[in-house]
Amino acid sequence: MHHATGTDQETHRIYPASRRTGGDAVSSAEILAEEVPVALVYNGISHAVMLATPADLEDFAIGFSLSECIVGRAGEVLDLEIIEGGSGIEVQMQITAERAQALKRHRRSLAGRTGCGLCGTESLDQLARRSARVESSTVLAEGAVARALSGLQASQALFRATGAVHAAAWCEADGRIELLREDVGRHNALDKMVGALARRGQRFDGGFVLMTSRASYEIVQKAAAAGIAVVAAVSAPTGMAVRVAVESGVTLIGFARGERHCVYSHPQRIH
Amino acid sequence: MHHATGTDQETHRIYPASRRTGGDAVSSAEILAEEVPVALVYNGISHAVMLATPADLEDFAIGFSLSECIVGRAGEVLDLEIIEGGSGIEVQMQITAERAQALKRHRRSLAGRTGCGLCGTESLDQLARRSARVESSTVLAEGAVARALSGLQASQALFRATGAVHAAAWCEADGRIELLREDVGRHNALDKMVGALARRGQRFDGGFVLMTSRASYEIVQKAAAAGIAVVAAVSAPTGMAVRVAVESGVTLIGFARGERHCVYSHPQRIH
Repeated sequence: MHHATGTDQETHRIYPASRRTGGDAVSSAEILAEEVPVALVYNGISHAVMLATPADLEDFAIGFSLSECIVGRAGEVLDLEIIEGGSGIEVQMQITAERAQALKRHRRSLAGRTGCGLCGTESLDQLARRSARVESSTVLAEGAVARALSGLQASQALFRATGAVHAAAWCEADGRIELLREDVGRHNALDKMVGALARRGQRFDGGFVLMTSRASYEIVQKAAAAGIAVVAAVSAPTGMAVRVAVESGVTLIGFARGERHCVYSHPQRIH
Repeated sequence: MHHATGTDQETHRIYPASRRTGGDAVSSAEILAEEVPVALVYNGISHAVMLATPADLEDFAIGFSLSECIVGRAGEVLDLEIIEGGSGIEVQMQITAERAQALKRHRRSLAGRTGCGLCGTESLDQLARRSARVESSTVLAEGAVARALSGLQASQALFRATGAVHAAAWCEADGRIELLREDVGRHNALDKMVGALARRGQRFDGGFVLMTSRASYEIVQKAAAAGIAVVAAVSAPTGMAVRVAVESGVTLIGFARGERHCVYSHPQRIH
């Protein structure tokens, strides 16, 4: 059961500013994207605080839980409640006893050290993660990436308002955009997209994700954990992202612009 | 005393790929930026793991220590050693007993919970940080931001090779770029720049930092902690970045492009 609690937080707001051109200054009102601290709490224990755009937070929490392998399917999040506080938003989740035990074991192994940066990763030993191997017979139609690119902006409502947020779009094999989520953080945008589809019970086969950002190693790892076989990014991948994609069976596409793109791994899934 | 231990890690590397244009495919060799897990270890305790470009890691470690208020000045890092392992790079630092005590107290207050996302921040209570108030009589010369922008690319060696890394440039009040550091992560680029200047004993007065990225709340907070009075970003700030800038006395400039930019806080420092 999910409580669809709304929040009063705004995704963007108007700020006074001054536009300068050469020596001239004109007072202006600028629409800026907001980022709000969002704490993800599992069975009463605060696991992570992320700065995120305060929209689609249920999608975000479910997607994060899946892409970080805290649960294996959306149904293992038994309850979800969104609570606003003065300093941010808490997403209180109840997960199954089995998953809570696994999370506690994982956290106990980290006890005494506090962490940062990589979602609960404090030392290099913890970084090497089981790379889920994605098996998928997905094949993209010719021109699918270009078609998805041309449809992007129409779906990016917050980007059109602010010029400053990332998007993750789930696209069918022919390039039609089925669902898009936005966030100031690219990892959050992907988590929101994963969560939105998972909450519908949809499987991640037969399509691809298009990111408006670079492709970092974490993007590929999150996608692989969710079972996504093809990741396309508008900008560059890092070398580590390519290595993770090769190992985890993900087709990685970078520099997707118009009719052009570059394929770094498992090209058999592209027509 | 600092051990200037080099690493064998490469900042960029060539990967085989396939360039597609419409239906055509051509095999290619692509230069991609590398990201490597870097663990920052204080007095034997691993504090954080960041994915970073493996260059200027001493600057990075000193800058992170300053911008995260782990030390108050570079001299409080008594020793620094860079150790390469199979799964990444460890930067082993020795800090003063007083600073180590403060860090332990801070970490003990987090005990039992493990964290993520915001450098050791697990719960919302820990997020509200002492906002250092920057006092500075810095005034930028007319056209300083435009001049810095025009000089950027000549200094961005890794960006020219890969098209995929951020830079933080320290600029004099007239817009001349004095020092630039690059990284796959924008926060890391800023930390490297802060560390590089701090290691020279330079004060952060009378100039400004130019970021090739968006301005997030953490960028402004790190700059304020280092004592930087003016932050200019090529892309948009978030609303939270503007609020932190207003509170901490930082002049925040966004959308810096050619002769144009937008000023969001404390405009008195711009001619």
